[in-house]
Amino acid sequence: MSVASSGGRLGRRQFLSGAAAGLVAGAAGPAAAQQGSGPLQVPVWTREQGEGIASPAYGVPSAFEKSVIRKPRTPPKFPTAASTGTPLQHLHGIITPAGLHYERHHAGVPAIDPEQHRLVIHGLVERPLILTMNDIARFPSVSRLWFLECSGNTPQWTGGSAKWTVQETHGLISCSEWTGVRLSTLLDEVGLKPEARWVLAEGADGAAMTRSIPLDVVLDEALVAYAQNGEHLRPEQGYPLRLVLPGIEGNMSIKWLRRLKVGDQPFQSREETSKYTDLMPDGTARQFTFVMETKSVITSPSGGHQLREKGFYEIRGLAWSGRGRIRSVDVSTDGGATWRPAELQEPVLSRCLTRFRVPWTWDGGPALLQSRAVDETGYVQPSRQQLVDVRGVNSQYHFNGIQTWKVAPSGEVTNAA
Amino acid sequence: MSVASSGGRLGRRQFLSGAAAGLVAGAAGPAAAQQGSGPLQVPVWTREQGEGIASPAYGVPSAFEKSVIRKPRTPPKFPTAASTGTPLQHLHGIITPAGLHYERHHAGVPAIDPEQHRLVIHGLVERPLILTMNDIARFPSVSRLWFLECSGNTPQWTGGSAKWTVQETHGLISCSEWTGVRLSTLLDEVGLKPEARWVLAEGADGAAMTRSIPLDVVLDEALVAYAQNGEHLRPEQGYPLRLVLPGIEGNMSIKWLRRLKVGDQPFQSREETSKYTDLMPDGTARQFTFVMETKSVITSPSGGHQLREKGFYEIRGLAWSGRGRIRSVDVSTDGGATWRPAELQEPVLSRCLTRFRVPWTWDGGPALLQSRAVDETGYVQPSRQQLVDVRGVNSQYHFNGIQTWKVAPSGEVTNAA
Repeated sequence: MSVASSGGRLGRRQFLSGAAAGLVAGAAGPAAAQQGSGPLQVPVWTREQGEGIASPAYGVPSAFEKSVIRKPRTPPKFPTAASTGTPLQHLHGIITPAGLHYERHHAGVPAIDPEQHRLVIHGLVERPLILTMNDIARFPSVSRLWFLECSGNTPQWTGGSAKWTVQETHGLISCSEWTGVRLSTLLDEVGLKPEARWVLAEGADGAAMTRSIPLDVVLDEALVAYAQNGEHLRPEQGYPLRLVLPGIEGNMSIKWLRRLKVGDQPFQSREETSKYTDLMPDGTARQFTFVMETKSVITSPSGGHQLREKGFYEIRGLAWSGRGRIRSVDVSTDGGATWRPAELQEPVLSRCLTRFRVPWTWDGGPALLQSRAVDETGYVQPSRQQLVDVRGVNSQYHFNGIQTWKVAPSGEVTNAA
Repeated sequence: MSVASSGGRLGRRQFLSGAAAGLVAGAAGPAAAQQGSGPLQVPVWTREQGEGIASPAYGVPSAFEKSVIRKPRTPPKFPTAASTGTPLQHLHGIITPAGLHYERHHAGVPAIDPEQHRLVIHGLVERPLILTMNDIARFPSVSRLWFLECSGNTPQWTGGSAKWTVQETHGLISCSEWTGVRLSTLLDEVGLKPEARWVLAEGADGAAMTRSIPLDVVLDEALVAYAQNGEHLRPEQGYPLRLVLPGIEGNMSIKWLRRLKVGDQPFQSREETSKYTDLMPDGTARQFTFVMETKSVITSPSGGHQLREKGFYEIRGLAWSGRGRIRSVDVSTDGGATWRPAELQEPVLSRCLTRFRVPWTWDGGPALLQSRAVDETGYVQPSRQQLVDVRGVNSQYHFNGIQTWKVAPSGEVTNAA
């Protein structure tokens, strides 16, 4: 934005007299200091030394941020087979801190010793192989900024609670820089047999989570990842080794990866038959619905936020597509009657979150905030009704409809999906 | 890399018999299970449920990663006026986890209540202003992936200890996604007077750290940042508000930012006169040496690493320039006699870390590993000698010479700068 265009954005605010400036500059007397930490006194944290270095040696957030945590939508009956959402309403940019990455576990988080961990590759291969973590670290590596989204994210097929925040409606998505070895590099090491068509990936957790992956997905950009946002994977994200399949429903990016078996057809595991299929209106089930389609959501203002006064706000949100880059995002403040193009934050990367922003002046009246993303293939994010017309309301997965946030004259923001 | 080109990279490894495959697939009997967690038994973490969700609700690294921490090079006499380095030897990609971002404090880390924190903007402005954190969050925001480097990083003007790791030679650099308000947006809000030329930035810490910033740097892309890698700033990084000046020595990105005073000349604060100036051979001092020049370092293999066997290794490192994008990085394994171009990991961003990689087959003999970066302006990273010929050895700051790691036939890697 140009410097000239943004004057007086917040309207009247507390202006400063020369005398006050003197105080702020550090000339406050003992009396002022006694009064504590108002804007015009010297606060205690300026009058005293702070914490020394490396305390702790691995840093943690400020105590004032203790409400910014992962949370389940409802208290789970089985905490080892449940999920937690990322607090998108508190986040900025596109990177998700590893400590706030969403979770979905089928038998809890195992505590795996990397020295003992092995990856086995067998089945329709020329040279079955067992690899240690040291072996895997030796291979050529790549890094990619990719989102991961649970196929169960946004359970609004039949609408949701007005009280839901964006953490509850859309929190099962996160974005990280992943580093590891291309799965194609490892399969080349063992040599695929001509009849190879599918790969079974198995986790070392108590669920021995297994999914079948078609060879075209495997040979795309699939990573066997050992690092996330610079450091080694977090336990909840598959430490010490996980699959990362860009743009594909999260449960297939098998965590705690211990085995890859190459076959000539899908293995029909529990997690791709009784689970992770989409029940259609006619009673049939869509199976192997891998790709997470184009989707977006406004994260600010969003459910649970409270606008304190009329005037300027920046509408901020996230958009993503399992098929490539986001081409454009339009934003509406009147429930879809009119739309304005949002600004996309560079760099816009394939199968990565894209941050969008658009200026908005709230007049104090009711408003319905929506965002609609288009990806580089031309796919347009559908309305909830367009989606339900095709898929019905029996499905638990792959909801990518347009989200609506309702702003009341009181400034209260609620879920209107 | 193409699938066809990478066969048999690691040479002979443990191959798998059909029977063993059966065991790995989960058919291990009780006897095998009793034996614990060898590669061919079912490990305890597969036989039991793991931790439930959100424990903790803000995630932490695996207990097996407890050696990956920030560390000072030597135990500091004054822990509140000291620095810690990022463990680059353990990191991948370009993002630095906030918990491992390098530290440099002048009076420790203050614990600031964001509700009480204020930013004052005064001096040669039309409308002096006091802003709350809520006010600042309302302004149009931008996100940028930028490195921060301490001007004192790499203290090898007179060589360093052979025992130094890359955490000790180069650890005072980190890279984050920063989100906040352009400083130019805030200065437009208050209105600069015609004679405005410099801005004093002041921290709310016990040192009231102050630096003078020329207007061209301020009006470039300087951010008043409240977020880092998605979440709000960490306390050690200036919570709740800091300046981020891309490509500029780290101490000027004032943390715990409480005041901006606009003037017509530099303010000659302690930190730009007695400190953070470069003493030249003729006894004069270079002042206002802002830009961090083009630099690179190999992070693997690097000091303290131990190569276990001959054969294939991927040489990995980081390159950066305070003047823009990295154009190319060359790598030598023979002390600079011959050079090979490294592959740069996309996206290559301006004033951001760039990860480079090059394949290497170690023949078991002695080797001298070096990297040399070139930025988009054509600037070539100098050798240590070229740098010393111009600057002498009195300076404590702005060392960007080529780093040499010595590989012994034993596989031990040491600092040979």
